[in-house]
Amino acid sequence: MATYIPDARSKGVRLAKRTQYDQDLVHGIINDTPILHVSFNAPPKDGPQFPTILPMLGSIDTYPEDEEAHIYLHGSSVARLFRLTQGDEVPLCIAGTILDGYVLALAPFHNSCNYRSAVVFGHGSMVEDEEEVQFALRSITNKANPNRWENSRSPPTKSELTSTGVLKVRIETASAKTRTGGPSDEKADLQNAEVVNNTWIGVVPTYLTLGEPVAGDGNKVKKVPEYLADWVADANSINEQKAIDAIDS
Amino acid sequence: MATYIPDARSKGVRLAKRTQYDQDLVHGIINDTPILHVSFNAPPKDGPQFPTILPMLGSIDTYPEDEEAHIYLHGSSVARLFRLTQGDEVPLCIAGTILDGYVLALAPFHNSCNYRSAVVFGHGSMVEDEEEVQFALRSITNKANPNRWENSRSPPTKSELTSTGVLKVRIETASAKTRTGGPSDEKADLQNAEVVNNTWIGVVPTYLTLGEPVAGDGNKVKKVPEYLADWVADANSINEQKAIDAIDS
Repeated sequence: MATYIPDARSKGVRLAKRTQYDQDLVHGIINDTPILHVSFNAPPKDGPQFPTILPMLGSIDTYPEDEEAHIYLHGSSVARLFRLTQGDEVPLCIAGTILDGYVLALAPFHNSCNYRSAVVFGHGSMVEDEEEVQFALRSITNKANPNRWENSRSPPTKSELTSTGVLKVRIETASAKTRTGGPSDEKADLQNAEVVNNTWIGVVPTYLTLGEPVAGDGNKVKKVPEYLADWVADANSINEQKAIDAIDS
Repeated sequence: MATYIPDARSKGVRLAKRTQYDQDLVHGIINDTPILHVSFNAPPKDGPQFPTILPMLGSIDTYPEDEEAHIYLHGSSVARLFRLTQGDEVPLCIAGTILDGYVLALAPFHNSCNYRSAVVFGHGSMVEDEEEVQFALRSITNKANPNRWENSRSPPTKSELTSTGVLKVRIETASAKTRTGGPSDEKADLQNAEVVNNTWIGVVPTYLTLGEPVAGDGNKVKKVPEYLADWVADANSINEQKAIDAIDS
């Protein structure tokens, strides 16, 4: 089981027992998170250094010429983050977080969430090779909507490629935290009959639901294609099951 | 309508038309987002400065003695971010992002998401006043689970208060971006019969679902209380409706 090597950036400080460095776990969380949060420092200015967070779409994948998986992010080639990386590498932190449930305890202090969270540190740089850009765009498209690349007008045109920036992030260290199970209360509260008899405790599972697809104005395809209907059905049953499973594990 | 004043941190660079500075919009998104992403710079070390992102629980609220709303975040008082702030202010970026749908276009280049996103910049410092700590903890608890504070064992004990850190973030600038509507395709694709006749286009709405509450091991309250049942029902109908409404607006 391959693991990332923790360093000052990724080492679990608190709740160390919940912190893991397993690569498969980190990669799975990154690819299961619909929207990633990416943080970078804009070039230093007067005053304190503020990081900036951008919500972005991305996927983790291994280019055939590489030995390791990288995170690919895409955006407009004129966006600030992409301009920053021109000819340079940028230090990035990327987080993927999935909420699996609200854990309700006798006292708010012990309320918690069931979740899966991955935080990755590495340098990002622009992908220049056109074949790798297409590999990344296909990966990002199909991570969000399985088989969509093959079932829509691809590959991109020259002008689409010019206006799209793809960042490739070399993962230097990463960690994952997960929380499962039910509430865990203080002995004093558990022995307090008034509290116990009046406070419902347990877990409210939460999961992302995909609704019925709604056709766009120019749509000419009468029936929702099977690959889309399957994606909706599969995602809904998998997401719900993960939230339920988290309670008992 | 109160607005934040954009500066170099928050000014929309790309998609400027989607960027708004309205305070109510920013506050609404922050409070509708179950998990916030918070970014800060650990103290400078050798090598490049890496920001760190933490997923955290928080709420935006106005303490009775204040004129303005602040973001309150809570965590362990020994966690790294909280140790950083001892006796000092820390520059923070806080993001809240809600996915409302996958927008599928004829070409992957025009695929998009319907979303609501807020990014806030400000300085965070520890709350020392015990009354304000309790105000913040109640606000964070009830934002996640309405009325839970009053329906569980509160206020916190002395030792619970000692081990909890509350950060108060003074908002200096902030912006929101939202995307609604269906796909918007290239003329060339729309006029290509083969593409149009074979590619389903539209929106797959997405929303967070709260499942049936699952009682914990020590639970003694037979029926799920009304305030919890109402929360589950309300959240589910509101979340779904927002995703559907986003398609037509």
